[in-house]
Amino acid sequence: RKQSKESIITDIRQTIGSTYGGNYKLRWVQQPRSVFVVKKPSSESTEKAFVELISWLHDKYPQLNIIIEQETTKEFQNKLPFVYIIPEGQKDEYTRVVDFVVTLGGDGTILHVSSQFDHSVPPIISFSMGTLGFLLPFHIRQYESALESLIKGDVSLLLRMRLMCSMWNAERKRIVWNDKEIGILGNLQAMNEVNLHRGRFPHLTAINCFVDEQFLTNAVADGLITATPTGSTAYSLSAGGPIIHPSVQSILLTPICPRSLSFRPISLPPTAKIKMKISEESRAPLEVTVDGRVEMSPYPIPCVNRVGEGVDWVKDINELLKWNQNFVNKQLLTHWW
Amino acid sequence: RKQSKESIITDIRQTIGSTYGGNYKLRWVQQPRSVFVVKKPSSESTEKAFVELISWLHDKYPQLNIIIEQETTKEFQNKLPFVYIIPEGQKDEYTRVVDFVVTLGGDGTILHVSSQFDHSVPPIISFSMGTLGFLLPFHIRQYESALESLIKGDVSLLLRMRLMCSMWNAERKRIVWNDKEIGILGNLQAMNEVNLHRGRFPHLTAINCFVDEQFLTNAVADGLITATPTGSTAYSLSAGGPIIHPSVQSILLTPICPRSLSFRPISLPPTAKIKMKISEESRAPLEVTVDGRVEMSPYPIPCVNRVGEGVDWVKDINELLKWNQNFVNKQLLTHWW
Amino acid sequence: RKQSKESIITDIRQTIGSTYGGNYKLRWVQQPRSVFVVKKPSSESTEKAFVELISWLHDKYPQLNIIIEQETTKEFQNKLPFVYIIPEGQKDEYTRVVDFVVTLGGDGTILHVSSQFDHSVPPIISFSMGTLGFLLPFHIRQYESALESLIKGDVSLLLRMRLMCSMWNAERKRIVWNDKEIGILGNLQAMNEVNLHRGRFPHLTAINCFVDEQFLTNAVADGLITATPTGSTAYSLSAGGPIIHPSVQSILLTPICPRSLSFRPISLPPTAKIKMKISEESRAPLEVTVDGRVEMSPYPIPCVNRVGEGVDWVKDINELLKWNQNFVNKQLLTHWW
Amino acid sequence: RKQSKESIITDIRQTIGSTYGGNYKLRWVQQPRSVFVVKKPSSESTEKAFVELISWLHDKYPQLNIIIEQETTKEFQNKLPFVYIIPEGQKDEYTRVVDFVVTLGGDGTILHVSSQFDHSVPPIISFSMGTLGFLLPFHIRQYESALESLIKGDVSLLLRMRLMCSMWNAERKRIVWNDKEIGILGNLQAMNEVNLHRGRFPHLTAINCFVDEQFLTNAVADGLITATPTGSTAYSLSAGGPIIHPSVQSILLTPICPRSLSFRPISLPPTAKIKMKISEESRAPLEVTVDGRVEMSPYPIPCVNRVGEGVDWVKDINELLKWNQNFVNKQLLTHWW
Ligand SMILES: NC(=O)C1=CN([C@@H]2O[C@H](COP(=O)(O)OP(=O)(O)OC[C@H]3O[C@@H](n4cnc5c(N)ncnc54)[C@H](O)[C@@H]3O)[C@@H](O)[C@H]2O)C=CC1
Ligand SMILES: NC(=O)C1=CN([C@@H]2O[C@H](COP(=O)(O)OP(=O)(O)OC[C@H]3O[C@@H](n4cnc5c(N)ncnc54)[C@H](O)[C@@H]3O)[C@@H](O)[C@H]2O)C=CC1
Ligand SMILES: NC(=O)C1=CN([C@@H]2O[C@H](COP(=O)(O)OP(=O)(O)OC[C@H]3O[C@@H](n4cnc5c(N)ncnc54)[C@H](O)[C@@H]3O)[C@@H](O)[C@H]2O)C=CC1
Ligand SMILES: NC(=O)C1=CN([C@@H]2O[C@H](COP(=O)(O)OP(=O)(O)OC[C@H]3O[C@@H](n4cnc5c(N)ncnc54)[C@H](O)[C@@H]3O)[C@@H](O)[C@H]2O)C=CC1
Repeated sequence: RKQSKESIITDIRQTIGSTYGGNYKLRWVQQPRSVFVVKKPSSESTEKAFVELISWLHDKYPQLNIIIEQETTKEFQNKLPFVYIIPEGQKDEYTRVVDFVVTLGGDGTILHVSSQFDHSVPPIISFSMGTLGFLLPFHIRQYESALESLIKGDVSLLLRMRLMCSMWNAERKRIVWNDKEIGILGNLQAMNEVNLHRGRFPHLTAINCFVDEQFLTNAVADGLITATPTGSTAYSLSAGGPIIHPSVQSILLTPICPRSLSFRPISLPPTAKIKMKISEESRAPLEVTVDGRVEMSPYPIPCVNRVGEGVDWVKDINELLKWNQNFVNKQLLTHWW
Repeated sequence: RKQSKESIITDIRQTIGSTYGGNYKLRWVQQPRSVFVVKKPSSESTEKAFVELISWLHDKYPQLNIIIEQETTKEFQNKLPFVYIIPEGQKDEYTRVVDFVVTLGGDGTILHVSSQFDHSVPPIISFSMGTLGFLLPFHIRQYESALESLIKGDVSLLLRMRLMCSMWNAERKRIVWNDKEIGILGNLQAMNEVNLHRGRFPHLTAINCFVDEQFLTNAVADGLITATPTGSTAYSLSAGGPIIHPSVQSILLTPICPRSLSFRPISLPPTAKIKMKISEESRAPLEVTVDGRVEMSPYPIPCVNRVGEGVDWVKDINELLKWNQNFVNKQLLTHWW
Repeated sequence: RKQSKESIITDIRQTIGSTYGGNYKLRWVQQPRSVFVVKKPSSESTEKAFVELISWLHDKYPQLNIIIEQETTKEFQNKLPFVYIIPEGQKDEYTRVVDFVVTLGGDGTILHVSSQFDHSVPPIISFSMGTLGFLLPFHIRQYESALESLIKGDVSLLLRMRLMCSMWNAERKRIVWNDKEIGILGNLQAMNEVNLHRGRFPHLTAINCFVDEQFLTNAVADGLITATPTGSTAYSLSAGGPIIHPSVQSILLTPICPRSLSFRPISLPPTAKIKMKISEESRAPLEVTVDGRVEMSPYPIPCVNRVGEGVDWVKDINELLKWNQNFVNKQLLTHWW
Repeated sequence: RKQSKESIITDIRQTIGSTYGGNYKLRWVQQPRSVFVVKKPSSESTEKAFVELISWLHDKYPQLNIIIEQETTKEFQNKLPFVYIIPEGQKDEYTRVVDFVVTLGGDGTILHVSSQFDHSVPPIISFSMGTLGFLLPFHIRQYESALESLIKGDVSLLLRMRLMCSMWNAERKRIVWNDKEIGILGNLQAMNEVNLHRGRFPHLTAINCFVDEQFLTNAVADGLITATPTGSTAYSLSAGGPIIHPSVQSILLTPICPRSLSFRPISLPPTAKIKMKISEESRAPLEVTVDGRVEMSPYPIPCVNRVGEGVDWVKDINELLKWNQNFVNKQLLTHWW
């Protein structure tokens, strides 16, 4: 039943160079017919909001098919008898069926949704439960007006770049990632970063790193992060990386505790194809036994913005990250009394 | 006589979003007819190479008009009687007349050439005099083969993004920069960075910084660098900034000795229009009396590459910057004996 | 009239290794007889407090001689007819005569007092005018009880290490510093840091740095800071240096914008004698034409603490410097709801 | 038979404040009678050197008792029938019996020896097998002359400070560390650092950190390093910490990937008693289930120096760590041609 939509959804792609990130105006070719509502697990307040929001959607937009995650169904089949699920093993249907996604929870809930979509991702609107998050433009209190605007098509979207990562074992065979079988064309899609880390192995690891098949460096470190601009404010930031605006098209390489005084983060162009090979000597640890290839994914995450995205972002780095909190502002003033 | 060429030269523009940096194949629409040869001042070895290279060019390509800087003419009018100069005050002619530029010297010589071109810049080929430099792909020994390839059109170009900066005084009037009269449309074109610095003023300065008319932060610091990807390996790097590949389209904001523990470098999209206002209190120092507006210039610097530019760049960050020089490689080895 | 006191005052010395910094209990051998009251210039509120505090002191302790700076006399000779001054050119008297110092103003006022004492320094009690400062344990509102405790001898002192710096010109002659004639034995005493900086000279400087006559490194940079633990939270912190507790006996070397990826701050033992020679090539700039020798001064600054000094310091780095302001505390909580 | 020596050995203590680190001249009160020779496991070249050095010692100093580790005995009982071992469970004998220690291997071998001595440590002389190490002043080729000087008493010792760490479980009971039963008075003695790390737990940990019973900060991070000056060039350096000269008496606190823009390393005085409590929420991970208390140990590691220790150290930070490798030295030169 979704044929006519597919062309639209698969439009949400990013081609390198033909465009940079930035904001886009949403335009529905056809009224949205299916929504996927996802919530963070085991939080009472989130559950309450989940039931309320879904009931409101069902009342207000009776034509809309509401899909929830299989894990959540059991608890809610009484309260929300009208919701659908996509059976286990058919998750590829998500891309084909879902017109937009609603998340309730924290930044982690959006990351979880991202990991469910191996191909094109429909627009995502994310609500915080009170606690601020970097990827959460809306407060749950605003859900009615926010969803109305989205369904009307009266919102702008920020296309957040993702990374596409494939893993290979020592015999050069493609391997599964995180116990999740990956099909012939399937790849891990990372919204924040791909991270090779020594894990519990107490010793340093050594990772040979190539860009476009050219040897770049040997990273002797706790780990190596390949991050998206979105991920630049996550783990990479803690490891000392710069802040990259989500509209910049770039892949960021940040080492974790490198055994070198001169390892500075590097921002590579979106064309870069990065290959990481664990050095023979470091193969012992379970966490890092494989080699990875990382490149820009053609499937970004389209996130619904509140105001202009630029505005949100500046607010976020200042309020959430407490960026550049001068400690002499007040003292400085006293010099000019 | 150059009408037919103009269209080509003015083609070397960068529009935001329509393209990222990266490499381009050079194609001459018409044989190049004028070359501008620039050298670093007061170096004997450079002078010798200057005379030799120009004489060779004149012999091999008698049709080619060879232009040198007015400052250099007096010394060389005997040895090189056939060269041309562009009279003082007509420097805007450079863009119209020059088909390609040759520089002999260090990175500073290319920066100097960049500052002479307020509009489109023709391809630049840069020779080092033996000492390596970040912007110097060719060694002077290779000048014959390198110039032949360029004139044949058998080279690739890296479009290095520039910043366009205008300055305004407290009365909101446009002002001159560096004693150089800037015309109604003229702007400073920066290849590395625009830098507001306290200079010899012993106290901190405070700069209010806006992005796209939105207040971003108040930088209480020694200074604030707005750098191109090319400039990311210059001053910004010393101030703690990341390395940005020249093919990434981005504007980098790096503070110099900020009075804040939390001021991390920020990479902004090429669309960003940055405004910096010296706070009232800090207006005293001469070096920083003006407000600046910085944005991506439509006029990049097309630099002739040696091999593929990617290859050069990886070599440069490893060899010149000594990036990620592990200090335990050898020790690590001993663990696996 | 101060003979009996001298022995005490010259006791406030620090010998390397025989003690570390840390807190000391003040004990007056004889009642204090002279106080030196210093205020920050051109601030109306400070002037009011200055007059009030001095009048209170004079009323309450009529035996106490109150000394003020010559610059301040003219303005206050009507309001405070009973104060003394030390004539210009006899500043060496300060050490002999003054029993304790009171400062009103900011951190800069204490730094100014420090620069007035080339030898032993009497205890200093510092009042902020409302604006917090790193070196200001007391708020002006508390002046009565604070001064009473001090005069009773009921306070603890933190001995803040200073650096002793001498300058030499290219002909290896001792030279004056900051237009201030320095006597045969005189040396600059620095409470925060000694800093060689390129100033307004637009180019990098190169400084050869020796420790105990052994070549340490060649610093190609904007400048090089040699800081005390106290100074670790001043300029050195902005340049990327660590925070050193004032009770640690150590000399900190922090580069300013070094042209090197691998220049990390170094904490040297208090025995270290540091020599800095501007490289021949960089001698041009006025700001940096001399060579400096820096070592730990035997004359620390004894600062009156409020509570235990440890307590103040932890409060200061957290409140003033906003050290380690986690940005995910709240988010983290949400994970455990 | 060692009674007379004990007083000397237990002299190798460090009391806070009464002394700083620095170099000491070794003086034997009585000829050394027992040596403990330790080697790195599973390295053929080390084994060869081990047999050769022990045989030479036995020939040259037949009175000297040579002790080796129990693990090593089986392999060497044929080749070195005259060596002694200390039986398992009597490791406390080491301090009482051993007059000096010889290590063959890398930095790790010295760290291993340090972990074997819970109380006073006799002088240690360390030989590298060719690969340089930060704690290895001697090359194996020099073993004859180096050991002769040491036995003659003709060497200087650097007292490397250690940290003393005890662990407590949630019920406030002392617990074992690393599966090693720790006696009533026993504590972990750390030569490099005590490190709380999230290990394989994929989430951030939160550590409440107290200094001298006063709350310092809540570290939300991958981990928190408490390092000695010796350890400042180990893990702490990779995490961004400063370099602390081994003669500085200080405890360094360096966070690993903190979720904060403003977490700067802190150098605390040797008096500091540090307590770290894993926050309730983060108790899950095995690697970090306990609370730790860390303070300066009274038992430093006396390391035999080659020349003056200062000289070695400057050489090491320059050669091994490649500290401050300017990348423009050569370019800079070209400016002054
Ligand atoms: N990301 C990192 O930098 C990590 C560092 N380490 C360090 O490794 C040490 C344990 O050593 P191994 O068991 O041999 O581990 P390892 O096999 O992982 O090697 C650690 C490296 O650090 C060097 N090293 C050790 N102590 C040093 C010191 N004081 N100064 C300079 N270099 C030093 C060693 O020579 C070796 O190259 C720990 O104490 C910790 O400091 C441990 C884990 C991660
Ligand atoms: N980029 C920077 O951070 C710069 C810092 N400075 C510092 O300023 C000091 C001189 O102070 P002013 O004449 O008042 O200069 P100023 O008017 O430029 O203000 C310097 C600021 O540093 C603060 N400060 C001074 N000593 C401090 C300390 N020990 N710990 C923490 N904060 C401290 C002052 O409260 C004031 O807010 C110098 O000793 C130097 O350390 C000077 C120039 C640039
Ligand atoms: N502390 C620092 O690192 C400072 C750096 N500079 C840089 O110097 C540049 C001006 O150059 P000069 O007039 O020759 O000054 P200069 O004579 O002070 O030398 C600057 C050095 O930077 C190198 N350099 C220039 N552009 C570079 C680039 N894009 N990537 C890597 N290295 C580069 C040059 O080869 C030269 O070694 C400025 O654009 C600024 O970026 C200027 C002042 C201080
Ligand atoms: N030392 C560190 O900073 C570490 C960071 N992480 C980050 O955590 C992410 C996974 O999140 P959870 O499963 O919730 O882990 P988690 O429960 O350990 O929390 C990670 C924190 O990072 C925040 N966060 C996530 N994405 C962000 C973004 N793009 N910008 C700013 N903040 C962001 C979350 O709000 C949360 O506060 C990973 O993608 C990684 O980036 C993971 C391990 C260590």
